[in-house]
Amino acid sequence: MELISGNQIAATIVAELKTEVAKLEGRAPCLALVRVGDDPASISYVKKKEKTAAEIGVTSRIILPPETITQTELETLIDDLNADPEVDGILVQSPLPGDLDELAIFRRVSPDKDVDGFHTLNLGKIAQEDDTGFASCTPAGIMEMLARSDVDLRGKHVVVVGRSLIVGKPIALLALQKKAGANGTVTICHSATQDLPAITRLADVLIAAIGRPRFVTKDMIKPGAVVIDVGINRIPDETRKSGTRLVGDVDFDAVAPLTSKITPVPGGVGPMTVAMLMKNTIKAHRLNT
Amino acid sequence: MELISGNQIAATIVAELKTEVAKLEGRAPCLALVRVGDDPASISYVKKKEKTAAEIGVTSRIILPPETITQTELETLIDDLNADPEVDGILVQSPLPGDLDELAIFRRVSPDKDVDGFHTLNLGKIAQEDDTGFASCTPAGIMEMLARSDVDLRGKHVVVVGRSLIVGKPIALLALQKKAGANGTVTICHSATQDLPAITRLADVLIAAIGRPRFVTKDMIKPGAVVIDVGINRIPDETRKSGTRLVGDVDFDAVAPLTSKITPVPGGVGPMTVAMLMKNTIKAHRLNT
Repeated sequence: MELISGNQIAATIVAELKTEVAKLEGRAPCLALVRVGDDPASISYVKKKEKTAAEIGVTSRIILPPETITQTELETLIDDLNADPEVDGILVQSPLPGDLDELAIFRRVSPDKDVDGFHTLNLGKIAQEDDTGFASCTPAGIMEMLARSDVDLRGKHVVVVGRSLIVGKPIALLALQKKAGANGTVTICHSATQDLPAITRLADVLIAAIGRPRFVTKDMIKPGAVVIDVGINRIPDETRKSGTRLVGDVDFDAVAPLTSKITPVPGGVGPMTVAMLMKNTIKAHRLNT
Repeated sequence: MELISGNQIAATIVAELKTEVAKLEGRAPCLALVRVGDDPASISYVKKKEKTAAEIGVTSRIILPPETITQTELETLIDDLNADPEVDGILVQSPLPGDLDELAIFRRVSPDKDVDGFHTLNLGKIAQEDDTGFASCTPAGIMEMLARSDVDLRGKHVVVVGRSLIVGKPIALLALQKKAGANGTVTICHSATQDLPAITRLADVLIAAIGRPRFVTKDMIKPGAVVIDVGINRIPDETRKSGTRLVGDVDFDAVAPLTSKITPVPGGVGPMTVAMLMKNTIKAHRLNT
């Protein structure tokens, strides 16, 4: 069993992007990070993105509206960022508090600045295998991780557990593309799937994106499979000072010995997501200038 | 084994739409049908669409540019139709002759008038389960056919053979939606799939959209499966006056006895596609007026 280190691969990508940005002429790529309210997880995610941006030489513009902001006010804020020629990418940190309509906000971001890849048009472009758009960061990060771990999906059976808009569907569409590294046979499972273990056991590559702690157990794995764990779940742990720890959607300790390669949580898919956000921002800058 | 008659179901839908159109006030829904050149199959498809439109009370505007039309001229023609308030839906008959860039033309059609459902934004809306868009007609027709044949996909394993933009991907996304009738576990196979028969034999519902005559043979079927044959292939047949006949992607005679339900070719998915085009046109009219 080989551990696929997202930390390591992400660090390599960050170093590559840093070199790329250093060569750019004119103003640096600029990412607007919009965080509404003070959710502790959101604070930590935005901080991480800001830090990585700084490391690469991407300018961050941090915007912190209070959680009392109205839908209309937030839309106006997005419109202003859309119109601002100095802003290449816009990220609105999810989840949005209160009654704010998240999907409407994601769609308000101009597709050209949608470095999170949540806009309808960018999702459609993945389906159409059109590289001018932005793939959402987690699925793009998974594809990059697989490629850099010498996992070619061609002819492999890729089973995705979870059909979310942000992970499940786009990773299925990416794995299916007629492109080097992709060309997988793809199955998408979800809460209504019957006899899930029988289907996940078909997987040469299993992608778990359910959001339920240690949901994937060893009886669900074909020996030798590659397992990508997208879950980030906080569970109680009295042995930790914080009283909690992070686990994935995969029961790592039991599953790992059966696999040929597996991603850990934390340090797996998570850091890849941030790296891909930076890659998208630099792409937006390239298309925008 | 029960035959799912697309002819019959389409006729029912056409009758329903006719009643719906009869109740409309103001001008009738209008569909612009653009056919470039004189490809015999295209002539016949456009004629069929025109005839069905007339039956329902949808106005057709037939536009027949010569195959010498340039990309720019065709784009200008589309722009004019986009801007014309009397036109609700625009269909550009595929395939386009010569060097015309089909994807660019499909994307030129305003998403609001894209009754063929080929625009990136409309494909993205299917992925996002947003009903304000237009699903492409063949996949939408398959879903309608299944619903009207009491085939509920919930918890079923739906295997789609073929990953085309027009059929394979959108039908996979529709079958996967969290909606009544859908909620299937979906597998998408294609030319790079290994041991295809082993995978198609998992299918409770098999959707064949490969474009290869009688490609799906009886060893690829789980007994009792529902089989939807999207293929329309013309093969030589000396016993016919025309010297050819139409067959599907499924080896019907051998496969049908194994199935619980199956669509014939012709008279299966084909007529559904035209019915759904009309349904989309009436929807566009409703959104447009």
